[in-house]
Amino acid sequence: MHSLLRRNISINAVFRSTRSPRALRFSTTASPRLATPSFPCVDAHAARQSKLLEASSLSPSYSRESTDSESGPEPPYARPSPTSYHTYHHSSPMKMTYGDELPSFDIAYETWGELSPNRDNVVLLHTGLSASSHAASTSMNPSEGWWEKFIGPGKAIDTRQFFVICTNVLGGCYGSTGPSSSDPSGERYATRFPIVSIFDMVRAQFHLLDHLGVDRLYASVGSSMGGMQSLAAGWLFPDRVGRIVSISGTARSSPGSIAMRHAQRSVLMADPNWNNGFYYDGVPPHIGMKLARQIATITYRSGPEWDQRFGRKLRKENSSQGSVQDRKPTLCPDFLIETYLDHQGEQFCLKYDANSLLYVSKAMDLFDLTLPAIEEVGMVPPPPSTIEPDYSYSSIYATAHTFSKSHPPPPNPPPHLPELAEGLRPLANTPMLILGVQSDILFPVDQQRELADALRMAGNGRVGYYELGGVWGHDTFLLDVLNVGGAIRGFLS
Amino acid sequence: MHSLLRRNISINAVFRSTRSPRALRFSTTASPRLATPSFPCVDAHAARQSKLLEASSLSPSYSRESTDSESGPEPPYARPSPTSYHTYHHSSPMKMTYGDELPSFDIAYETWGELSPNRDNVVLLHTGLSASSHAASTSMNPSEGWWEKFIGPGKAIDTRQFFVICTNVLGGCYGSTGPSSSDPSGERYATRFPIVSIFDMVRAQFHLLDHLGVDRLYASVGSSMGGMQSLAAGWLFPDRVGRIVSISGTARSSPGSIAMRHAQRSVLMADPNWNNGFYYDGVPPHIGMKLARQIATITYRSGPEWDQRFGRKLRKENSSQGSVQDRKPTLCPDFLIETYLDHQGEQFCLKYDANSLLYVSKAMDLFDLTLPAIEEVGMVPPPPSTIEPDYSYSSIYATAHTFSKSHPPPPNPPPHLPELAEGLRPLANTPMLILGVQSDILFPVDQQRELADALRMAGNGRVGYYELGGVWGHDTFLLDVLNVGGAIRGFLS
Repeated sequence: MHSLLRRNISINAVFRSTRSPRALRFSTTASPRLATPSFPCVDAHAARQSKLLEASSLSPSYSRESTDSESGPEPPYARPSPTSYHTYHHSSPMKMTYGDELPSFDIAYETWGELSPNRDNVVLLHTGLSASSHAASTSMNPSEGWWEKFIGPGKAIDTRQFFVICTNVLGGCYGSTGPSSSDPSGERYATRFPIVSIFDMVRAQFHLLDHLGVDRLYASVGSSMGGMQSLAAGWLFPDRVGRIVSISGTARSSPGSIAMRHAQRSVLMADPNWNNGFYYDGVPPHIGMKLARQIATITYRSGPEWDQRFGRKLRKENSSQGSVQDRKPTLCPDFLIETYLDHQGEQFCLKYDANSLLYVSKAMDLFDLTLPAIEEVGMVPPPPSTIEPDYSYSSIYATAHTFSKSHPPPPNPPPHLPELAEGLRPLANTPMLILGVQSDILFPVDQQRELADALRMAGNGRVGYYELGGVWGHDTFLLDVLNVGGAIRGFLS
Repeated sequence: MHSLLRRNISINAVFRSTRSPRALRFSTTASPRLATPSFPCVDAHAARQSKLLEASSLSPSYSRESTDSESGPEPPYARPSPTSYHTYHHSSPMKMTYGDELPSFDIAYETWGELSPNRDNVVLLHTGLSASSHAASTSMNPSEGWWEKFIGPGKAIDTRQFFVICTNVLGGCYGSTGPSSSDPSGERYATRFPIVSIFDMVRAQFHLLDHLGVDRLYASVGSSMGGMQSLAAGWLFPDRVGRIVSISGTARSSPGSIAMRHAQRSVLMADPNWNNGFYYDGVPPHIGMKLARQIATITYRSGPEWDQRFGRKLRKENSSQGSVQDRKPTLCPDFLIETYLDHQGEQFCLKYDANSLLYVSKAMDLFDLTLPAIEEVGMVPPPPSTIEPDYSYSSIYATAHTFSKSHPPPPNPPPHLPELAEGLRPLANTPMLILGVQSDILFPVDQQRELADALRMAGNGRVGYYELGGVWGHDTFLLDVLNVGGAIRGFLS
């Protein structure tokens, strides 16, 4: 068959441009053959490296611990000014979930509204992975916060009614103690910092509540990792948490979410600048951070959003790089979606401490409220809350079956559902609002259904459960003031 | 409020282990405080780097072009032996989609079955991104191929009936010309290789068909990127393609898929070993390749599959690293899902040429059969096929409405649907099998629906459309012999 005739067909016929094509997006005119290529998307990394190297050699104190000294230059990530938040210092050791002991720690926090005379109007707000305590503007820090539209007079969390507290998590880098902090000897912890759990973050927060004299929260509220903390708060302290909001969170990190965080940690730790976590005397792993944030950004939104927002539009060129008509595709970003991801990575890569990212990301992976997992870390579930059921809490939510028509029990419940229900027993008496988003690929809506189902199975008759549509994916909690805000407002009032 | 009473509560109560916990997965006993940590997952990269450096210095010919010389050592990726496949050499220049000209090229190919006397039983099989021409075992290469279970006597593509041809794509590294090949002066192309399009890959394949004397394909079959090629074949040569199978492919790469490939290219190009593509004289970017493959692997399967397969199981430790009971969580992989991804990356990182990955990945991004995109690269759609409709092709598929009950037209069709339908006009007369998988996150099922809808809108009355359930995601086409194989067999017979 190899000696067959060669057949001549004019494949070039398809190139005949008989119609005048619309504005060319990509040029099809021949370029000088085999020119040595250039890669501005890669050169940008080298340029930032040089700039940071130069800055670090000009400022020998660049790497100094700045929580201890307000006068030193800022570390490479944008730690907020210590005058822009309150700090609670815990001077005695705290035992942590995985057996280590933290000799002392700081928790950065901010507040909104007024504490009532009975101290019974406190809403503890928990953050996602990389957020600071700055959820909304304050007199100490008038810049816009990450939940500005949700917190304030007349807003979803109404500060005419509630006293809101938000902390930077233990392990973070925005004023709370984490791997970039110094140990008692004055050395940066770096990766000598103990592995942190979501429980540890919450225990630290409750030390702050003790300090503030707050016995009992009106509500614990959080989204994403904040949803985990919100559950953990009610789990650890059933008598101290009045109600719980968990938005796009989970009671048990799934392997799919772990996979996406693993990919981020892998690219970050592969950056030679990371240096096993000991980069505070040099240039931080900005390339690894950028690459990690690009991956994270993919998990924060959704394909349908990008379809609407970017479609297949090409990036805008600098005028120096020629007109759109002259452009050929390259191995660097060509599409707007690519420059969007690139930009998100660039924006973040010096804003957050790389080690904090690793520790907080790992804490999310480790979170699991199934009974065997709880027991395996040597913890025993506290007995379910003894608070009287709150029947004033609208009868709409009074039965476990309210939502069963639009959300029937799954035909094949996940095999761990009974174990999760057992693990969630301490939350059986706490009114709950669970909210999930159908386009979320990081904390898929299945995880929200599973959580609602397990809580009901555990005997909780006051589980409110909503699913949102839309294209905003995991980030819906930051964007959908109408629906997310409305559900919270209804639940808290 | 800062002078409030400190309240003592015994948070340590929750640590009281009154029940004997089940086998501990993570140790909670204190380790020596602040020991300097070690990171075997990072050390593994450095170890491979040293090993490769040593190998490259021991073998100065390591980097020699091995397509020209069978005697030299293999390049670092596992190029198959040139005796295990056929090679078609095209000695005249080929004009490419983006204006460049390739002076000459090789196409590696393998075949199964016998060519009929009329040469009318040819099935051209197109590969996904990283596959070689070795779809199934042959006498030249008896090792198992990537579609072994689908090709053979009595199988989905029945070699008692069909003569099957599979090529390594232009731009690849398994025997066909790509960036790791030498230019006419004997230098490796590296990133001086022209940007390749899916059309270019298909044009090269049709030069091979010309050489083999095959005027017309019985069918063009492909999955993933192979689905794109399958469509492009029928689009470029409507009179030469009898029917088309596109499994988990697309007619228009979506920004969501581009995002995931962008993330892979970014981590690969950030590897210092990549060196703007000129690494053939040194150590290849094995770390970047590993990280890229980890990300790719996430897009190949699905969360539900990992739930079933790995759940939250922990990795097995080497006995030297202590028992499971002594283990604490680390920043390196703890969960089985992580070691699975790590392993997939390790397995791949020296198997495939990094530049080929970049070029072929980019070709997928660029693929777009909407009319404006076609015109923008200066191409004009060929007129629709003039072949007579094949009424023997079961009446089940004879109308556009067969599948409208289980798959009604979307209430809000994507805005580009009419433009896609216009672009697909050359495919209006070609019988089609479109197959999508509901758990696919790389080529989501929406893209298959859109393709089927646009083909129908273009006037194609013979579009078979299936959706598969299951948890295998994008990889379903490699695994689901029963359903994928069954659909193909039914369509081809």
